[in-house]
Amino acid sequence: MNRRLIIRILGAIIAIEGFAMIPAFLVSLYYRDGDTSALGISFALAIAAGAAMYLIPKKEKNSYLRLKEGYIITAVGWILMSLFGCLPYLLSGMLPRFEEAFFEAVSGFTTTGATVTVNFDHNFHGVFFWRATTHWIGGMGVLVLTLALLPKLTGRTSHLVKAESPGPSLSKLVPKTGKTAKILYTIYFALTSAEFLALLLCGLSPYDAAVHSFATAGTGGFSNYGASIAAFDSVAVDAVITVFMFMFGVNFALYYKCIIGEHIKAFWKDEEFRCYLFIALSFILMITFFNLRYYENNFLTSLRYSSFQLSSIISTTGFVTADFSRWPAASQMLLIIAMFIGSCAGSTAGGIKVIRINMLFKLSRRNILATGHPKKVDVIRIDHKAVDESIVSQVAQFAVMYVALVFLGSFLLSLDGKFDVITNITASLTCVSNVGPGLGAVGPVENFAGYGIWGKVVGSFLMLFGRLELLPMFILFTRSAWHKY
Amino acid sequence: MNRRLIIRILGAIIAIEGFAMIPAFLVSLYYRDGDTSALGISFALAIAAGAAMYLIPKKEKNSYLRLKEGYIITAVGWILMSLFGCLPYLLSGMLPRFEEAFFEAVSGFTTTGATVTVNFDHNFHGVFFWRATTHWIGGMGVLVLTLALLPKLTGRTSHLVKAESPGPSLSKLVPKTGKTAKILYTIYFALTSAEFLALLLCGLSPYDAAVHSFATAGTGGFSNYGASIAAFDSVAVDAVITVFMFMFGVNFALYYKCIIGEHIKAFWKDEEFRCYLFIALSFILMITFFNLRYYENNFLTSLRYSSFQLSSIISTTGFVTADFSRWPAASQMLLIIAMFIGSCAGSTAGGIKVIRINMLFKLSRRNILATGHPKKVDVIRIDHKAVDESIVSQVAQFAVMYVALVFLGSFLLSLDGKFDVITNITASLTCVSNVGPGLGAVGPVENFAGYGIWGKVVGSFLMLFGRLELLPMFILFTRSAWHKY
Repeated sequence: MNRRLIIRILGAIIAIEGFAMIPAFLVSLYYRDGDTSALGISFALAIAAGAAMYLIPKKEKNSYLRLKEGYIITAVGWILMSLFGCLPYLLSGMLPRFEEAFFEAVSGFTTTGATVTVNFDHNFHGVFFWRATTHWIGGMGVLVLTLALLPKLTGRTSHLVKAESPGPSLSKLVPKTGKTAKILYTIYFALTSAEFLALLLCGLSPYDAAVHSFATAGTGGFSNYGASIAAFDSVAVDAVITVFMFMFGVNFALYYKCIIGEHIKAFWKDEEFRCYLFIALSFILMITFFNLRYYENNFLTSLRYSSFQLSSIISTTGFVTADFSRWPAASQMLLIIAMFIGSCAGSTAGGIKVIRINMLFKLSRRNILATGHPKKVDVIRIDHKAVDESIVSQVAQFAVMYVALVFLGSFLLSLDGKFDVITNITASLTCVSNVGPGLGAVGPVENFAGYGIWGKVVGSFLMLFGRLELLPMFILFTRSAWHKY
Repeated sequence: MNRRLIIRILGAIIAIEGFAMIPAFLVSLYYRDGDTSALGISFALAIAAGAAMYLIPKKEKNSYLRLKEGYIITAVGWILMSLFGCLPYLLSGMLPRFEEAFFEAVSGFTTTGATVTVNFDHNFHGVFFWRATTHWIGGMGVLVLTLALLPKLTGRTSHLVKAESPGPSLSKLVPKTGKTAKILYTIYFALTSAEFLALLLCGLSPYDAAVHSFATAGTGGFSNYGASIAAFDSVAVDAVITVFMFMFGVNFALYYKCIIGEHIKAFWKDEEFRCYLFIALSFILMITFFNLRYYENNFLTSLRYSSFQLSSIISTTGFVTADFSRWPAASQMLLIIAMFIGSCAGSTAGGIKVIRINMLFKLSRRNILATGHPKKVDVIRIDHKAVDESIVSQVAQFAVMYVALVFLGSFLLSLDGKFDVITNITASLTCVSNVGPGLGAVGPVENFAGYGIWGKVVGSFLMLFGRLELLPMFILFTRSAWHKY
């Protein structure tokens, strides 16, 4: 194992994280809150530690990373990042307990948005800005960011991006990973700015607009209001965020293709996008219909809250405008199913991903139709191209591991001893899929603060497993990850 | 498609079902209940209809069945069987509504044991005996029974047995399917008799002993008491049934091997059995521990109820001695996980089956360990023998379809509009896995009577999908099943 190179990369990640804290520091200076020194110390510590690690001398001859090393760097990098990321919460006194600060940092970076914050009435503008920033960084991935900024850090960088990027296969926009990363971040920045401006036009303060557009962009879901988006109680804000949550669940490669000449056709030509749109629209229609009586037969009101909440859950953002735990059971079941599905690969969203669900659907259909015709096994096609059987098989295995992790997580969370079965199941699912709210005691108007230390630690790891799509974290728990080889 | 042959086979199934009603008829004669004429009409109708179908002239030259036809016969056969099987409930007036009588018949044959019966205080001894008989027939499979009795009905009979028998591959004990079926039924009969005698020794009446040993043998779970096994309130009865529930979850091929010379080694040599034993014992220990406080720190009391309930759930029997919906959430989560797992292939139990879970576990481990070593893909071994990759892949696909069906079923059940999310999820799971009780409004002291017509129909089909391990029922819903070819 190439220890020096690994330490250098981890150093770069932490240093970049430190620089990313500076905007929050400036915000706290502007608002003259009590958290300025906490943010100052945090960013200084992160930059110093990161730089010290980055500056150890490298051995030129061996700057090549194996896939497994890529996975290990990713897993360790995300844990380290969360450890440094929780400093502002700890030092400002907003979340003085370590397990709570760590949970909040992990929830931020993994873009889950499940929170243990119970007090939104103080004036930690800087820390809340940092909390939103973690969503923005975590959404696209900090390794992607690192490679965008330091493209020459290592050879074979695609291993690193593969480990961090969601989806069954890595779509490189241009041959060089570093340049791909730059393009992705440019699109990301442009879309975020567009939402920021739209929210300003809706009458939000620049601070609220920034916090909520960061949280939407990363499909995270942290709000600086306890009531989440319901705090604004504005149809325009709901509409803008509904649309942008959906948009950040779309594969970013499509935006690139759209810009470089395919225009709107880029979306329609993409099978995953069509499926995503179809699932989202059909679920919205059904939920709107099921909720009609709950909203006193007012179709538009039902449509407003149903479309917002479905868009929020399927994009795994987790913003809330309605207490969906009081909706009819059929609506809640659709939201649970949407939590499993998630959005498109190559977006900032979590879940199993639409492309995998589509493949599994085709696989099941083939299974049923091919019975009795053992010789006639049709290949599975996505976008009219045959998909390699080994990828199809891996996707099925991924789904099995995903579901198994959700149920294992439910069991581990239930050891916390506080909550009922539906709370633990939906808490585990919402963590693994990086959504945010669940049902029961972690429902839309509750949060994770009620769990004990054990529950918060388990929840933190479930979020990391989900965000990195299982393998990097699992590998960290194998013996061979820690052997010299 | 060989229509005449299919009708002949279906006729044989229904006629055999008619004969199987005769013992219940005799029981009702003995008890002089009001249900004698209902059972008399039912068995006469079934035998007449079955005989009429069986006696249509066959075309000698084409007595060969394709695999797909085997699946279709199985699916249609089980539905027809349930239609005739619900006659005693309808005609006796015990369950006068068709959807309730059908649900009860399907629940019996699929050995689920979920019931819509709310009145246990009347004197339908004959009908309750028939209800237990459906478990016994459904456990081993009525096609297996048909082939045991009419081995020369068709060529290539293994297709029929494959479609009906649980597990990823069919283990034939002897080359001829008909003879295998006879051996299986002999073992089945012997084990049932052993439990019958043991329950007599515990002081049960011959009637109660027969009903409960039938229900245990099929891993069904119907009792003629509303309180299920808790009605006896006897440690001895609990112990006997705990052991027999576990035993009926074991692959019957092992009993055969044990008898023909391998003795007790037959069990220990079998990897699936070892896993099954390990899962059952470790779950019992954990649940006993979690329940300690609930049972006022009395270890033996906790062990008694925990071991009974785990054995009941993992063998997918569904008998109840404790209201486990009031146990700690961790115990309930383990029961939910046990519902997914089920018991061994080749037993009378439902669930995904231990052999598949074991394969999926090994597959996941390989997935994790092989990362970064793309060329080094170890084969997966069960009982020291390499498992074909196509079977491994099919098992993963089966698990995906299984979980998807459970969640689709939860959604469909929630359209019934009566119950909450946890009720619908566990109701769907308990139906697909053929267990019986769930949580919430279908919990251990409740039953399915609260669902409306829609919920009962959906539940009936979920039980059939689960019992026939998905494919036969799915194929019935494809267009090509109904085309001439």
